[in-house]
Amino acid sequence: MTTKLTPEEIARANEKAAKKKAARDKMLATKTIEKGLLIVHTGKGKGKSTAAFGLAARAIGNDMKVGVVQYVKGKWETGERKVLEAFPEQIEIHTMGEGFTWETQDRERDIRAAEKAWEKSKEMIEASRGDNPAYDMVILDELNIVLRYDSLPLDEVIEFLKNKPEKLHVVVTGRNAKEELIEIADLVTEMTQIKHPFRSGVKAQVGIEF
Amino acid sequence: MTTKLTPEEIARANEKAAKKKAARDKMLATKTIEKGLLIVHTGKGKGKSTAAFGLAARAIGNDMKVGVVQYVKGKWETGERKVLEAFPEQIEIHTMGEGFTWETQDRERDIRAAEKAWEKSKEMIEASRGDNPAYDMVILDELNIVLRYDSLPLDEVIEFLKNKPEKLHVVVTGRNAKEELIEIADLVTEMTQIKHPFRSGVKAQVGIEF
Repeated sequence: MTTKLTPEEIARANEKAAKKKAARDKMLATKTIEKGLLIVHTGKGKGKSTAAFGLAARAIGNDMKVGVVQYVKGKWETGERKVLEAFPEQIEIHTMGEGFTWETQDRERDIRAAEKAWEKSKEMIEASRGDNPAYDMVILDELNIVLRYDSLPLDEVIEFLKNKPEKLHVVVTGRNAKEELIEIADLVTEMTQIKHPFRSGVKAQVGIEF
Repeated sequence: MTTKLTPEEIARANEKAAKKKAARDKMLATKTIEKGLLIVHTGKGKGKSTAAFGLAARAIGNDMKVGVVQYVKGKWETGERKVLEAFPEQIEIHTMGEGFTWETQDRERDIRAAEKAWEKSKEMIEASRGDNPAYDMVILDELNIVLRYDSLPLDEVIEFLKNKPEKLHVVVTGRNAKEELIEIADLVTEMTQIKHPFRSGVKAQVGIEF
């Protein structure tokens, strides 16, 4: 099943590739700042928390320490935990959420849960200042949801994250990320759902949905 | 900060949870098909391979077996490998790519590498038929790139993936997913870049970019 090419095609393709590489090398040479990033995964599609989980595992594999605060219970299931907990001295996960926000009409309870999770988040982020940081990456999973429902004072959260330790990577996930958060973020990715199996009657399955 | 609930709050929360569960169960009851999904992560944003890696780790955590073929070298770095290799009997990774497509200077070498990777992919997928499948999930990382550069015959790839083992989950990543692939996919997510640190002069960093 070989795709045959003429020598001219090969030469053209190679020349094009060489030009691209030169341009890319030149671009990369201008990127010299090293700092902790504020990363946001938002959008209605899948993969926001999964990609954050992937970042956590990659960081662990790079001997970094990772802290996780889950603002919504049940987003990272036993599957994730089992893998990450193979590296207990490199990861600390706190599940603070009281359940899906849309599952409860109890504002008081939501707000108390959000505040507790935010206190823990600030604690982990503050512990990452200086020469001996407690964490290299802190993931605030589904923080966007509680901000969206105004369960936390947005301005305080933004002000705090804006002043995070310089070397610390902070990852925020959840749909409907606030404009103010996107403003101060370094890297924002929107996950857009193009196709979902529920539409064709397929049920949630272990290893995929949970 | 206390999260002590009054009896009223507990009663209300329980009632809500029961209602929610009933509604969710009713919805899920209509989703009866259990099958392996063809999942595509595409778009120009980050997180395509990272989310696939997260799916692999989640699957491993759920005692599933995962096979990975990397069509582009260097997408899954030592970080990922170190974590996944803590579960050697559940994961098999083959790195077949010869380097980033835009970096290589040799079109024919790209095509040979793509063909080799595709042969390995077919082998792993075929080995997952029947009652004792070799894998529960096979990830074809960056397959979209070689399809985009016509390094493989699209119709053959589509035809083969359309006839994958029914229970097997196949995850395909890479920007510029072909329409024909999206057509036959069950779950398609597009990662869109809203903001990238390169724009503010930040360089690629361990644990984030690699």
